[in-house]
Formats: sequence, C-alpha cells, structure tokens
Amino acid sequence: MRPSGRKPDQPRNITLTRNFTRHAEGSVLVEFGDTRVICTASVENRVPPFLRGEGRGWITAEYGMLPRSTGSRMGREAARGKQGGRTVEIQRLIGRSLRAAVDLEALGEHTITIDCDVIQADGGTRTAAITGGCVALVDALNFLVKEGRLKTSPLKQMVAAVSVGIYRGTPVVDLDYPEDSEAETDMNVIMTDQGGFIEIQGTAEGVPFVQDELDGMLTLAKQGIDRLFAIQKDALGG
Amino acid sequence: MRPSGRKPDQPRNITLTRNFTRHAEGSVLVEFGDTRVICTASVENRVPPFLRGEGRGWITAEYGMLPRSTGSRMGREAARGKQGGRTVEIQRLIGRSLRAAVDLEALGEHTITIDCDVIQADGGTRTAAITGGCVALVDALNFLVKEGRLKTSPLKQMVAAVSVGIYRGTPVVDLDYPEDSEAETDMNVIMTDQGGFIEIQGTAEGVPFVQDELDGMLTLAKQGIDRLFAIQKDALGG
Amino acid sequence: MRPSGRKPDQPRNITLTRNFTRHAEGSVLVEFGDTRVICTASVENRVPPFLRGEGRGWITAEYGMLPRSTGSRMGREAARGKQGGRTVEIQRLIGRSLRAAVDLEALGEHTITIDCDVIQADGGTRTAAITGGCVALVDALNFLVKEGRLKTSPLKQMVAAVSVGIYRGTPVVDLDYPEDSEAETDMNVIMTDQGGFIEIQGTAEGVPFVQDELDGMLTLAKQGIDRLFAIQKDALGG
Amino acid sequence: MRPSGRKPDQPRNITLTRNFTRHAEGSVLVEFGDTRVICTASVENRVPPFLRGEGRGWITAEYGMLPRSTGSRMGREAARGKQGGRTVEIQRLIGRSLRAAVDLEALGEHTITIDCDVIQADGGTRTAAITGGCVALVDALNFLVKEGRLKTSPLKQMVAAVSVGIYRGTPVVDLDYPEDSEAETDMNVIMTDQGGFIEIQGTAEGVPFVQDELDGMLTLAKQGIDRLFAIQKDALGG
Amino acid sequence: MRPSGRKPDQPRNITLTRNFTRHAEGSVLVEFGDTRVICTASVENRVPPFLRGEGRGWITAEYGMLPRSTGSRMGREAARGKQGGRTVEIQRLIGRSLRAAVDLEALGEHTITIDCDVIQADGGTRTAAITGGCVALVDALNFLVKEGRLKTSPLKQMVAAVSVGIYRGTPVVDLDYPEDSEAETDMNVIMTDQGGFIEIQGTAEGVPFVQDELDGMLTLAKQGIDRLFAIQKDALGG
Amino acid sequence: MRPSGRKPDQPRNITLTRNFTRHAEGSVLVEFGDTRVICTASVENRVPPFLRGEGRGWITAEYGMLPRSTGSRMGREAARGKQGGRTVEIQRLIGRSLRAAVDLEALGEHTITIDCDVIQADGGTRTAAITGGCVALVDALNFLVKEGRLKTSPLKQMVAAVSVGIYRGTPVVDLDYPEDSEAETDMNVIMTDQGGFIEIQGTAEGVPFVQDELDGMLTLAKQGIDRLFAIQKDALGG
Repeated sequence: MRPSGRKPDQPRNITLTRNFTRHAEGSVLVEFGDTRVICTASVENRVPPFLRGEGRGWITAEYGMLPRSTGSRMGREAARGKQGGRTVEIQRLIGRSLRAAVDLEALGEHTITIDCDVIQADGGTRTAAITGGCVALVDALNFLVKEGRLKTSPLKQMVAAVSVGIYRGTPVVDLDYPEDSEAETDMNVIMTDQGGFIEIQGTAEGVPFVQDELDGMLTLAKQGIDRLFAIQKDALGG
Repeated sequence: MRPSGRKPDQPRNITLTRNFTRHAEGSVLVEFGDTRVICTASVENRVPPFLRGEGRGWITAEYGMLPRSTGSRMGREAARGKQGGRTVEIQRLIGRSLRAAVDLEALGEHTITIDCDVIQADGGTRTAAITGGCVALVDALNFLVKEGRLKTSPLKQMVAAVSVGIYRGTPVVDLDYPEDSEAETDMNVIMTDQGGFIEIQGTAEGVPFVQDELDGMLTLAKQGIDRLFAIQKDALGG
Repeated sequence: MRPSGRKPDQPRNITLTRNFTRHAEGSVLVEFGDTRVICTASVENRVPPFLRGEGRGWITAEYGMLPRSTGSRMGREAARGKQGGRTVEIQRLIGRSLRAAVDLEALGEHTITIDCDVIQADGGTRTAAITGGCVALVDALNFLVKEGRLKTSPLKQMVAAVSVGIYRGTPVVDLDYPEDSEAETDMNVIMTDQGGFIEIQGTAEGVPFVQDELDGMLTLAKQGIDRLFAIQKDALGG
Repeated sequence: MRPSGRKPDQPRNITLTRNFTRHAEGSVLVEFGDTRVICTASVENRVPPFLRGEGRGWITAEYGMLPRSTGSRMGREAARGKQGGRTVEIQRLIGRSLRAAVDLEALGEHTITIDCDVIQADGGTRTAAITGGCVALVDALNFLVKEGRLKTSPLKQMVAAVSVGIYRGTPVVDLDYPEDSEAETDMNVIMTDQGGFIEIQGTAEGVPFVQDELDGMLTLAKQGIDRLFAIQKDALGG
Repeated sequence: MRPSGRKPDQPRNITLTRNFTRHAEGSVLVEFGDTRVICTASVENRVPPFLRGEGRGWITAEYGMLPRSTGSRMGREAARGKQGGRTVEIQRLIGRSLRAAVDLEALGEHTITIDCDVIQADGGTRTAAITGGCVALVDALNFLVKEGRLKTSPLKQMVAAVSVGIYRGTPVVDLDYPEDSEAETDMNVIMTDQGGFIEIQGTAEGVPFVQDELDGMLTLAKQGIDRLFAIQKDALGG
Repeated sequence: MRPSGRKPDQPRNITLTRNFTRHAEGSVLVEFGDTRVICTASVENRVPPFLRGEGRGWITAEYGMLPRSTGSRMGREAARGKQGGRTVEIQRLIGRSLRAAVDLEALGEHTITIDCDVIQADGGTRTAAITGGCVALVDALNFLVKEGRLKTSPLKQMVAAVSVGIYRGTPVVDLDYPEDSEAETDMNVIMTDQGGFIEIQGTAEGVPFVQDELDGMLTLAKQGIDRLFAIQKDALGG
C-alpha cells in the first residue's frame, strides 16, 4: 500500500497551467500532486560564446527551489554564493532533456532559457520541471514563429519525464516525498512522444536492483509518460 | 492621467492569500495589481551568533526575484554567485521594518525568516513584500502560540508599506512599473497601524523635490497605508 | 544634554582638506568631528557597458572602512571575499546622491568614481562621505576642463548631507557614535544648495516617529546642510 | 569498425597500480587505455555535521582534472573559484557508487574521502575513477583493521563501472574519446560483484535510444564489468 | 643620477607618526617619502584554531591599497571578491617578519593583527609597512602590559625593512616608484636590530644579478636599516 | 647528520621524465627524491589583455597540490573556492623565474602556461617545479619551431632552482620535508645556467641568519644548481 493510497501504476493528479506569469515567452505552472514548479521560457537573440557564428541555437535550463518550498527551510543559494551539487545536477539534466525536443539548426541563433523554480516540493521536482518546461518551450517556439523570427516551429518531438522506483519491494510510478525518501531504488525516465528514451537515471539507495526490477520500472515509466503526453497535448489545445 | 487610468490616491487592486504553500509556518501570496510576491515565514529554535544567550528573538528577511519575473530575463543570483546591491538593500529594509512589528524580548530565542520571492514584477515589490510579509509573520507567531512554545503572540503592531511618488508633477500612490520608471521622485513609506513611521525612503530621480511635494506624498501614503491595514485585517479574519 | 555637550542644532567641527593625496584627480579628507573619511575622485575615459555609445557619462561610488577604523576590529571585506550589506547600501546612496550634482549629458563619455574610505569612524560616515565626495567631484570636473577635455564644468549644483535624529526625545543634528547607537530615530538627509531634497532616509530604531518629529528633524537638517554648503564653498576657495 | 580497432565487446587495456603514492591510506593509479586517474583514499576520525553522534561512517568523493589532462588546456577550477557542473555531477556519482560498497554502520565514525584526479583523459574517466577508487577504498578499510581501529573490514561488496554506448549503430563497451564524442548514446553502468545494479545513467546524445538498444548495452556492460571485477581481484592479490 | 637627486646610499625622508587614529591599540602613519601607509595593531583575546590550547600567541598581517593610492585607479579588492596575488604575497611577508619580533610563548593566547593600508604609493610600500607595523606592534604589546594582561612586553627585538636594487648599474637604497619600475634588480631586506637577517627577497627583473651586486646591495641595506632603527627608537621616545 | 643520511652538499636523487602525458606541448615528471611534480607546458595563440597588440609573448604558471599529496589530506582548493596564499605565492615565483628563460619579444603573441601539479610532496616542491617546468617549457618552444610558428627557439638560458637551509647549525642543500620543517633558515635560489641569480628568497624560521650563513648557503646552492643543469641537459638529449 502506498502512503497516498495510490495504485502502483497510478500517477498523482497532474495539471499544467499555461500563461501563469505574464512577462515570459512561455510560462507554465506544473503540478504533480503537491509538487508545484513555475517553468518559464525566455528567448534571447544570441547564443553562448562556444556557438557563435555557427548558425545554431541553444536550449539551456536553470533550476532553483524557494527556500521554504520544503519541510524545513533550506539556505538560499544566492545568499550562500553558490548553487549546490544537487541543483547543478538537476539543471544539467533538464537542459539535456529539452535540447532533445528541438532542431537546434532550425532554431537559428537564439537561446531559450528554461527557468524551473520550485515553489512547493513533494518529490519528483525534476520530472515535473521537464514535463512542464517542455510546454513552456513549445510556447516560446511558437512565439518566435508568431513574431516572424522563424518560419515554422523547430519542435521535433515532445519530451516528458516521470520517476519510478521500488517501494517496499514493488515497482511504483511518480513517487511523492514520503515514498521517495524510503524507496530502495529511484529512477528518472525521460522519453519522447515517439517512444524513444532520452535519459535514464536509476540509483539504488540501499539494496542494488536487478534486471527484473529494472524491466518492471521501465514498463511503469512508459505507461506513466504516455499519460503525460496526453496531458501536455490537452494543455496545448489538442 | 496615470497610465493605468487610476486616480492619484487610488492604489491598485490588492489581495492577500494566506496558506499559499503548505510547508511554511506562514505563507502568503500578496498581489499589488500585477506585482505578485510569495512571502513565507519560517520559524527556527535558535538565534544568530550575535544574540546567543540573550533570551531575545530575531526577525530577518531575504528577497529574490525569479529570473523571468521581469520584462527581460535577469541573471539568476545563485548562478552569478552573489546577491546584487538592490537585493541586499531591499532585504535589509524588509527585515528592519518587520522587526518593528514584534516584541523581540517576548519572542524568546526564536528566529523567524521572512522569504519574499517575486514571481511577477510590476513596480512596488518591496512594499508588497513588507505588507504581505507582515501577515505571514502574524501566522508564524500564532503558530508558536498554538504549539505552546509561546503563551501569547509577541505581536506589537501591524506594519504595512506603500510607495508614493511625483509622476508628471502630481503626487500619486502605489506606482506601477510604467509610472515608477518615469517618476521624478519615488518614496517608500512604512508605517505602523498606530500611525507612526517606521521608515521613510524618498529619492529624487531627476529633479530634487521640495517640502510641499514631500507633504503631499506623505498625505497620500498615510491614506494608502490605512487601506492596507484594512486589507490585512480582513485577510487575518477581521 | 548631548554626550558631547553640543546644542541640538550644533554640528561637530567640520573640515575639508583638498589635495590630501597626490594621484587622484580630486582628493579630499573630510572630518566631521572624529569621523575621518578620505574621498578621491578618479576619472576614466569610458563608461559602463549599459551606457556605451549613448554619449552620456556616469558617476559611481565605492565605500569601505579600514578594519580598525572602529572600536573593535572588523574583518576586512577583501579577505572575506564580499562587501557586506551595509557597505553596498551606503555606496549606492553616495553614488545616487552625487549623480544629482552633475549634468551627465554634458559630462560626455567619462566615468568618475568616488572612493570613500573611512580611516576613523565616529558616526555619520555616509553623510561625511557625500559632503566631502562632492568637493572631490568638483575638483575632478575642473580637472577635465583644465585638461581641455570639457569646455565647461558640468556641475549643476552642490550636494551635501547631514544626519539628524531623535535623541532622548529631542531632535538633534549630526549625531556622533554615542548618540547614534542610542537614538530612537536616525535620518539621513541629502540636499542641493538650491534647497531641494535629493534623498531622505529615516529609520525608527525603536519607537516609531510621528509627523511632528519628522518636521523637527527636517528643520534641523536644512540648517545643518546650509552650514555644510558654506564650508564646501570656503574649501573650494569661494 | 571502432577507431581503435577493438571489437564491440572488448574493453581497453586496464591496469590497477596500488601504492602509487606513499601518503594516502589507499592509493591507486587506474588506467583504462590512455585514461589515467590517481585515486587516493584518505581516512579521518570524524564525520560530517549531519552524521555526528549517529555512530555511522561516511564515504565521499572529489574529482578533478589536471588542466592539461585534455587535448586543449582547461582553466584550473581552483583559479576560477568554483567547480564546474560536470565535476560536481561526476564526484556525486563516484561518492554514491562507493558508499554502496561499504556497511556504513560497521565503519563507525570515520570518513573516507576518495580523491580521483585525472592526469590524462581519453574517455571514461568516471568509470575508471569508480573502478580504481573501489580498490583504494579496500586498502583504506584494511588499513583501519590493521591499525586496530576496526575488528573486520566493513566491505560489503566490490563495485566497478564501465561505459557502454551506441557507436555508429552498434553497442560497444568502454568508449574512448574518439568514440565518446561521436556516440549516439552514452551509458555509464555501475554494478556490484554480486550482480546488482548500483546506478545506470544513459543519455541519448542525438537520436533517442530504444528498448533493444538498452538491452544490448546492458548485456555488454555486465560482461565488461565482470572482467573489471577479475582485474580488481588480481590487483588485491587474488 | 637618481631621479630624485638622492645619493645611492640615501634613503627618502622617513617619518613615523604614532597614535594616528584613536581606536587601535597601536596606530602609526609611516611615510617613506611620498609612500604613506597606515599601520594599526589590534589585540584580540583568542588565537586561530590551529593554535588553540597551546598557550602561545599569534601575530598576523593584512595589507591593502586604497583604490586611488596609485597613479591610475585599481579595482577595489572587496568589490572584485578576492585579494590579488601581490596582496597575498605581501601580507604573508609582513606577518612572517613581525612574528620574528615577538616571543610568541610569552605573548600568551592573544592575537595581534597588523593592518597595513596604503593611502599613497610611491614604491617600497611593503618595507614601509614592516617598519611602521613594528612600531604599532610595540605599542600594542605595551598596551597589554599597561592593562595588566601581561607582566612584561614579549618584544624580543625590533624589525625593520628596506628595499635595495640595481638602478642603471648602480646599487641604490630605498627605491621610489620611478626607480622601482626601471630597476634591473629589486631586493627587500628585513633585519633585526641585533644584526640578523629575517628575510631576503631579491628578484632580477631583466638581467640576472651576480654575487658582487648582491654584496653591494646587502651593504647598502644594512646601512639603511640601521637608520630605520634609529628613527623607530626616536618615535618610541627612546 | 641529516635524517636521510645525505651529506650537507648532497642533493636527493633527481630525475626528469619527458613526455610524461601525451596531450601537452611539453610534459615532464620531475622527481626530487620523493617529491614528484607533473609539469606541463601549454601553448595558446593569444596573450593576456594587458599585452594585446604589443607583439610580445607571455609565460605564466599555475601550481596545485593533489589533496593527498601530503601526510594529511588538505582541502581541495577548487572545492573551497579559492587558491590559498601559499599557492599564489609559489605560482607567482615559478612564473617570474621561467619568464627569465625566454626572450618574450622573440616568442611573439603566444602564451605558454606551465602547470605544476604536485602528486607527492616531500619538501622542495617549488624548486622541483621550476627545474622541471623549464624542461617542459623548452619542449613547448621547440614544438613552436617544429610547427613552423617560430623560426628559432626564443630560449635565452636555462633556469633551475634548489633549496638550501641551515639545519641544526649547518648549511645543507635540497631539504626534504623532515629537514624543512625543522630548519632554522630556508632559502630558495633560482639561477640561470650562465651563473646569474634570478631570485633569492631566504627566510629565518626562528633565529635570524647572519652573513656567514648566507654565504655558506649560496655556495651550496650554486653547486647544487650546477648539477641540476647537467640533469636538465641530459634529459634534453645532451
């Protein structure tokens, strides 16, 4: 029995609210249950130094948590003067994942920065960020088309992510914080809507996991992500 | 004529939403028109080193803006490795102002940190943060009473803040961004609900201001703040 | 009775020594009683990135205290690797105030940096820095004229600053450290020699202050600043 | 055909040289072909703050590259004042992986730090570091036993790691730099000598990968890691 | 012919002004010609962590230059967020040199920090800092005796420093900036008043120097330092 | 009697291994007994900002120690976010010394960075780094010739360094760690193969040293360095 009463293959209630704030070219509030993340996509007419003059664009991501998004207050990274290792790891994962959604050649010399800021955390913030960030990214790409800066959207495919894990011996999908902190194995799976894997990160927290468990988790992940693609599609107006 | 069509003495639509997030002891979404700030109050059972062993408590504040809370994306302070001068100046103002609301002796050896994170900016973020932060602070103080850690709330008085300025020669209250960026003088006024001033910060942006203009702005500020105290009172359940 | 025996409207002994060091285009030692600050003005033939190509100049300020300018040694900010919040707040105030003295269009693409380094502190370092920094600034502007880089000085007006406060219930001018650390209210007033306000920053340290007290402090401030303008004029040979 | 002429399931020449330097409790030079990493294990009689008083030990890792371990010189992280995102990500992975080798309760209040410093890079530095670091860790645990600070070694199982990938459509094991920079998919697999997975990190660099490719890579990884366990066993004297 | 018209063995005009500022336990303005350095000595009742509980004291030094102590403005180290390499090198030299003056066992668990802040630079700031810093140190040691915290001063010997160099082929003493920037060799010599060397740092700027030149410089240095000891003695009322 | 059994004028066993790693233009492992330092020379086709457009080249150096190159583990400078004072001092010395070996005009607009990374420390790391770094530098200069980027090598002279000291009253050469930590005086001498001094840095650790001791140390240093030049010559193939 999961603490929330959910079935093993049952994700939390998931919502995507577009145009959540007004300044960004894409702005989405994503909620995976009590996990709430603001994802904004910002367009700039330039690329980082390592890409200058190559005619290609770039997608990057930054991640942060409000100090009191968690059960006890975390020190503010801006005040401590550096981003922690977990933050760096997560924002690199989000950036890599979302780059897979876009044809960077077709994007031209634009940079799109996806900012993912957690306002309330209850497990799965990185998978929520990728799933919501992809919708913000689509809005930003469409903005470029609408503004006449691109002829067609360089979107190649949708990308979404979900966590799976082994909780008390059973594979489960979309772990919340009480499950996450107790799970033997925790795995984040990022896929495209055409069925390929973008990234798999599975970590045994205590006992190593075996091939059967891996297979079980991947099966749940694929089902869960299919549902996320439907929710993204709904949010984007079908 | 103000860009928003408001009268000189007319503040924006102001709302305070308590319990906006679930982890903090106090959590308030404050909206001054399109300016939206999440204010959380976090209680800790210890005080900073300079107060240890003195039996008194401490109130402090931190301020941040999401990178895309503004018209163009600002670099994330955590990524740049330091808080900017404006951030430091604002969070020190919020901390000083809210300390005036509480009897620090009666608070005992607790620290309450008010985090003010701007998710959408349209002028007046610091006055919104003080006004909303005070309500989050009240909730945190009441939490300490409910938990039995304090017998009565050490709240001395409510504190609220509003901006006033000289816009095209006329004193106006609660400036939004289009007014703020053009105003000749900008002044932030922080008061108590017993009618005293906590802090006055008036800055001439171009032409110096004179005593008459100062008097006109202070009159508007007092009226505007009275309205804020009513809204705070409503939010706290009358 | 004030600790120093001064009358409420009596500033400390104030001196301005020009050409205090030999390298800077303007160099002034300002003394407000035992408070001693070295103010230098340095001219550069370029402007910060945000102003490039606009034909306008810039005035900025930096502030520091020698580690043992105070009663107990403060850690050196260069060794700690960052400027503290109070330092940042003060140097922003000095910069804003002195920009009001100059026609930045007429200054052309020059930057003048005012460095204010406190070698001995006894209260009122920021008001001393503004008052002395304005004289160093005048010298630097005259240097530009003398060198033939500007036809006439772009000085618009002199700027000076004084602190006022409520000490044991009475408004007083130009607080020294023993008064400052005990005052109920502390206010810094920056004005032009044409009678306008550049900036007012008043802070209640304990009890809030009321309109009558504000009026009393402003009256003292105006008198005190008039005297500062006379001292500046004398120093400039005038 | 692989650039090195190796068969798809053929790892590079792998050597482990124990006692490579003389000060550390464990010191191993690990070579995966031209990739050379110095792994040292350092024992301290204390644990990080978050573990104090719990009677458990801790294993942590740090990773660095000499500036000219690579084809073009990289800026020294110590000179730039921060560790890059890739460094942080890798050292967190090494630490997590090696913690799985040890019974932290049985280790008692000791910290073992595994420093992995790359002196020559040719792909696969993180898998070399984990594989060599585990041997340095074993030596450090045996040191604690020899010194009488522990009765028996708290080693639970050996841990080793290898990279696999899809190179020009074919799964291959232990990628060198020319393969790594061109591979469609890159996956790091960390396993125990009892056959369980500690961590799987697979990333599609261009085209997403599918279940069949994943299965192919995992099969190669298991074979490759078995060979690593044999080499570790040899190095440790059988 | 030296630019200043001095003879090769003629130091600049040297003055030591005690009690230059009022807060520090020792405060000396040292002038070597146009080089002016404020040296303060601050006493604390504790020692750095590496000395705790050993019953010995510590002498340390910090060095800084006001941004416009030099011909063109240098960036403020506090604003840049780190001390430069030259600053670090100099303050370590000052600290080592002045530790030689004191019996650290007899000092007991006190730390004395010598802050050397250059307000005007014209060559030889480090030798001026050592020479003036030693006098400030003596005053701080006498303060400890006067306060009854030590029975007798733990001063072992006076320490002073002078620069020598090869300027246009001739050894000269106490180089000013025009000489220093052109000299072939620059050497700083730190000695005790009992005739021993504390530190010798000689650097060839262009052409290497030979034994004869070294001997010539050391002869000048010894003469020059004898004069400094006389000036120190005078200043101390001796 | 020296702890190692060496005679006073006997250096340790010294070896220079060229081409130690494969990516750098020069790569040397230098061993002074148990002290082992990897020195790489990296060529770049640009110069630092202060030299741009002047047609001259630049030689610079960076120094680091692996955390467990020493008896107890030192914190990693990259993780602490800054290079320590000793590191800064040493790398500036190496850079100054090696610049003396090269005709910077003839080098043209190239920068050569010498990275000296200590993998095992037993005293004398800075003298080993200079001696080995000079050989790496020669290889890098020859690389520029071989590549046709320079017509002839801009090498002016070889540079080498050795430490000398007063150990239990007797001058000795090439101190190892047990001697170094006990020596009364420690001096680093850097010379050219034409017999001139590049730098002399002598420091009394306890008792000041006198002219006779200085002379004795310099005599030993000259002999020791002559031997180093022979070893460099051998390594470079005669």
